[in-house]
Amino acid sequence: MTLSPTRRSTIRRGKKRAVTDRAALKQVLDAGLICHLAFVTPDGHPVVVPTGYGHEDGTLYVHGSTGAASLRGGTDAEVCVNVTLLDGIIYSRAVFHHSVNYRSATIHGVGRQVTDPDAKLHALRVITEHIAPGSWDHARGPSKQEFAKTAVLALDLHEAAVKVRTGGPGEEPEDLTPDRIGASWAGVLPLVRSWGTPEPCEHLPESFEAPDYVTRREMRDGPQ
Amino acid sequence: MTLSPTRRSTIRRGKKRAVTDRAALKQVLDAGLICHLAFVTPDGHPVVVPTGYGHEDGTLYVHGSTGAASLRGGTDAEVCVNVTLLDGIIYSRAVFHHSVNYRSATIHGVGRQVTDPDAKLHALRVITEHIAPGSWDHARGPSKQEFAKTAVLALDLHEAAVKVRTGGPGEEPEDLTPDRIGASWAGVLPLVRSWGTPEPCEHLPESFEAPDYVTRREMRDGPQ
Repeated sequence: MTLSPTRRSTIRRGKKRAVTDRAALKQVLDAGLICHLAFVTPDGHPVVVPTGYGHEDGTLYVHGSTGAASLRGGTDAEVCVNVTLLDGIIYSRAVFHHSVNYRSATIHGVGRQVTDPDAKLHALRVITEHIAPGSWDHARGPSKQEFAKTAVLALDLHEAAVKVRTGGPGEEPEDLTPDRIGASWAGVLPLVRSWGTPEPCEHLPESFEAPDYVTRREMRDGPQ
Repeated sequence: MTLSPTRRSTIRRGKKRAVTDRAALKQVLDAGLICHLAFVTPDGHPVVVPTGYGHEDGTLYVHGSTGAASLRGGTDAEVCVNVTLLDGIIYSRAVFHHSVNYRSATIHGVGRQVTDPDAKLHALRVITEHIAPGSWDHARGPSKQEFAKTAVLALDLHEAAVKVRTGGPGEEPEDLTPDRIGASWAGVLPLVRSWGTPEPCEHLPESFEAPDYVTRREMRDGPQ
C-alpha cells in the first residue's frame, strides 16, 4: 500500500530519498521513541512540542495533560508530526556534501480528541506500550482522576511521507580525481542508540530484579 | 543570564522541570545533533522539518537548499525550533507516571536570511562544525555555485525555554505502601547515544586512516 500523494505530503526536495510505502512508515514509527508535534496557535504562531506517542492500525496517538497547550492546539486543528531517527554523520570531501543518514516520517492531519472511555483507555495502552513495552500488564492502570486528567489526540496516518537516507557521501566528480580523492577523510560515522543499565527506583526492594521487558528491551530499529 | 520570560516561552506545564539560564540552553544546543524547525505555510498550515543546525553567540543557524520550503517558510516569518535529547525511559508503578528523562530547548523567533557573503560563509562553518567537528579545515570549501544554492537562516536565541527531566519515577503515595511498592518494577532505563565504527567511503585509499576528529569524536553530552 502506498502512502497518500497529496500536494503537501509529496516530497519535492531530495526525491531519491522519498519512500512511498506504508511498511516504511510503520518501521520509522516503530523505531522512534518520541515525535515532534507542530500546530498553529489561535493567533497564528507556529509551535513545536516533543512528546511520546504510539501507533496502531493507521492511527497515531499522543497524550498529555488536559491543560497542555499542545493538546488544545491540536484538537480539531491541523497538526504536523515528525518522527526522525538520526543514523549517522556523512563526512564528505566537500563541505557542501556533508550530510546525515536518517529515517524520517512526516504526517499531516487534523487531530481529534479521543473521548470514548474504552477507545481512550486502549489508546493509552498503545502509547504506554510504545514508550515502555510490557509495562501496561504490570503497572497500576489509571485511576478515575488520572484518566480524567489525561487527554488523548488521534491522528490518521493517511497523509504521510517517509524519507530515508543511507550510504556514504555523494561526491562531485571533481572531488574524486586522483589528486583530490584522498584530500580529506570521507565516509559515515554511525550514531548508535542503545539501552543502558536499568537504574531501579530507590524505593524498590533490593531483591526485585528488573524484568525481562526492561533488561531485554530491544531497540526496535528493524531493517534499515 | 536568564532566558527571556515572554508569555509564550514561559513554561506553564511541568514548571519544576523548567530551567532558566543560558548555560543550560547552550548545553542542550551543544549536545543536540538535529533540530526540529516549525513554521506556518502562507495558507496557514503547520509544518515541522528536521534539520541540522549550529549555534554561536546567541544565534542559531540552519541551512538548506534555496528551494526548500522550510527555508522559504522561515524567512522573515515566525519559526519555532526545538532540540530534544531523550535520556531514558521512566518505568513507574502506575501507568500514569510513565515518562521520559530528557533535555529540551524551544526557541521562538523570526528567521532572517543571512545574505552577506562573509556572514553566510561563517554561518556555514558554524553549522558544519556542529554536525561534523573538524571537517571545515579539511574538506573543500563551497564553490561559487554551491554557495549560491545554499540558503542560511539565522534565529536569535533570545526567546527560549529549556526543560530538563532527570531522576526516577514520581510516584503516588498510594503506590509506595508496603503491599504496592514491589508490585511492578520501577526505575529508569537509560538511553545511550554513542558513535559507531567509522565506515570509510569506498573511493578512499585503504591506507587513509580515519582522523582523530572522526575516531575520537565526543558525544558532547556535557553535564546532565
